Amino acid sequence: MAVYTQVSAEDLGEFLTRFDVGELVSFKGIAEGVENSNYLVETTQSRFILTLYEKRVAADDLPFFMALLDHLAERGQPVPPAIPDRTGREIHELCGRPACLIKFLSGVSVSHPTPAQARAAGQAMARMHRALADFEPARENTMGVDHWRPLFERCGKSLNDIVPGLYDDLGFALDDTVSAWSADGLDSCVIHADLFPDNVLMLGDRVTGVIDFYFACTDLRIYDLAVALTAWSFDATGHRFDKAVADALTTGYEGQFPLNGHERSQLLTCAVGSCIRFTLSRAWDWLNTPADAMVTRKDPLAFWRRAKVYDPALARLTTCA
Amino acid sequence: MAVYTQVSAEDLGEFLTRFDVGELVSFKGIAEGVENSNYLVETTQSRFILTLYEKRVAADDLPFFMALLDHLAERGQPVPPAIPDRTGREIHELCGRPACLIKFLSGVSVSHPTPAQARAAGQAMARMHRALADFEPARENTMGVDHWRPLFERCGKSLNDIVPGLYDDLGFALDDTVSAWSADGLDSCVIHADLFPDNVLMLGDRVTGVIDFYFACTDLRIYDLAVALTAWSFDATGHRFDKAVADALTTGYEGQFPLNGHERSQLLTCAVGSCIRFTLSRAWDWLNTPADAMVTRKDPLAFWRRAKVYDPALARLTTCA
Repeated sequence: MAVYTQVSAEDLGEFLTRFDVGELVSFKGIAEGVENSNYLVETTQSRFILTLYEKRVAADDLPFFMALLDHLAERGQPVPPAIPDRTGREIHELCGRPACLIKFLSGVSVSHPTPAQARAAGQAMARMHRALADFEPARENTMGVDHWRPLFERCGKSLNDIVPGLYDDLGFALDDTVSAWSADGLDSCVIHADLFPDNVLMLGDRVTGVIDFYFACTDLRIYDLAVALTAWSFDATGHRFDKAVADALTTGYEGQFPLNGHERSQLLTCAVGSCIRFTLSRAWDWLNTPADAMVTRKDPLAFWRRAKVYDPALARLTTCA
Repeated sequence: MAVYTQVSAEDLGEFLTRFDVGELVSFKGIAEGVENSNYLVETTQSRFILTLYEKRVAADDLPFFMALLDHLAERGQPVPPAIPDRTGREIHELCGRPACLIKFLSGVSVSHPTPAQARAAGQAMARMHRALADFEPARENTMGVDHWRPLFERCGKSLNDIVPGLYDDLGFALDDTVSAWSADGLDSCVIHADLFPDNVLMLGDRVTGVIDFYFACTDLRIYDLAVALTAWSFDATGHRFDKAVADALTTGYEGQFPLNGHERSQLLTCAVGSCIRFTLSRAWDWLNTPADAMVTRKDPLAFWRRAKVYDPALARLTTCA
């Protein structure tokens, strides 16, 4: 959420001469994305997002992400592909960082989604999953179910510094969820894996863009839906569940790409799993970010509280309040 | 250089209904300005900058700044005035902060100005000074010559933590400059007082915008020119003076609004004064920002080194290296 690498007007003007995009008119560093530096760039022809990839996105993964965006864009999905330069190249280097010039999409990210907006997001996700049926590249979900226990152990007893008892309680939920988890008979494809409202651009109730694919990976399509349910259907603290939003998201999805009975029965396990995944990643960041650093630490318990709503059995745990 | 106050799409959409500017299409938090939160906002009609004023800009000063921008814009100067709402009001409140919707200007801030660009900046400054001859409101320069000694004393002996000996050496230069300073026979007007290359938008060698007037105040016009000379004519470390850029800036200014002989003779004192002013404000920020805070502390010595270039007498001081 910051600009880590400063690009000068002179360097950017020179960089743009590789492309057939006109001349630089304006650029502003924007506070967006995970740990990349982003600029909104205007030329005499159009507008673009310039992304410089900082350490969190592995340069080796960029060809996968760019192929994914190209595949989706070619099939009419509202995603922002990279702009090729005059030689067809999409991945460049600028100021010592891998860099892509990316299509600009209109729309805003809503903070308090309505059911109609959630339905549109569910539909957009289902259409993407359909469009990816013939996408061959794969990428491991490095934040997937097999990675939760190692991350949990790396956090260790320090979890109790967030709230006393969290290590035991989260360990219990983790055991429970991992043993209930099975991919048998469930569709996999490349999924977004981080479809929070932040990553969906909308105009009114219409999806105009799906962005920030840097967690995209091969996993269960119901896990993608579960992440979105967890992200869209609660207030920011994770206390209050909005059933109308959750229902709209699911029916929106199923209207475009129905789930089978087995998938429906496994959706709850995936939903609790998504709570564990975000609790763990936020807990790790929380424990490894100095309290006085000028970045906002996101509350890990906001996702732990969601788990209780999904699974009343977890409500008995004292830390899940 | 960050977004301190997060504005939701819902709040912004509602805010824009006060204005006759169309509907929200896109907005991005931008990393710009001193200590304000800024968004680049696109509507169905046009683009704007939305500024939310954080603590550093006093709300009481906003009517002065907005009157200044209106005055300059009405006289054809390339400045970004605030957009009035349907009732004519320019200064609003949003998310608990004073807020203005401001005209968007094209152009980029250059990092390595050429003489032609410096000439254009000097011309733009002179035209602004001319256009302000009939602007009546006044505002004290709270970073002006009378404020340097109190700020120096507040920094105190801690200055020696930046470089040993800085307290004595800077005190000497301060005495020298303040005693040589005289406003007698020198033109005053409202000046920008912070016309760094950052605050000038250009397309090629043409000035398309002068921005960030939040230090604007009533002071000597040669002091405004002196600040610009100090900001434009050195490399970032303050070691290397670019005479061609300095000459172009001055001749650009004088071509539009000549200085008299007395003003020319006092320009050097003002230039050293501007070095002291920025050394002091940067030193204060340096001494009051934790070293591990995630904001970039600007090197105070970059301006102290410039003083030596202006006044070879200061080169004898050991800290001025």
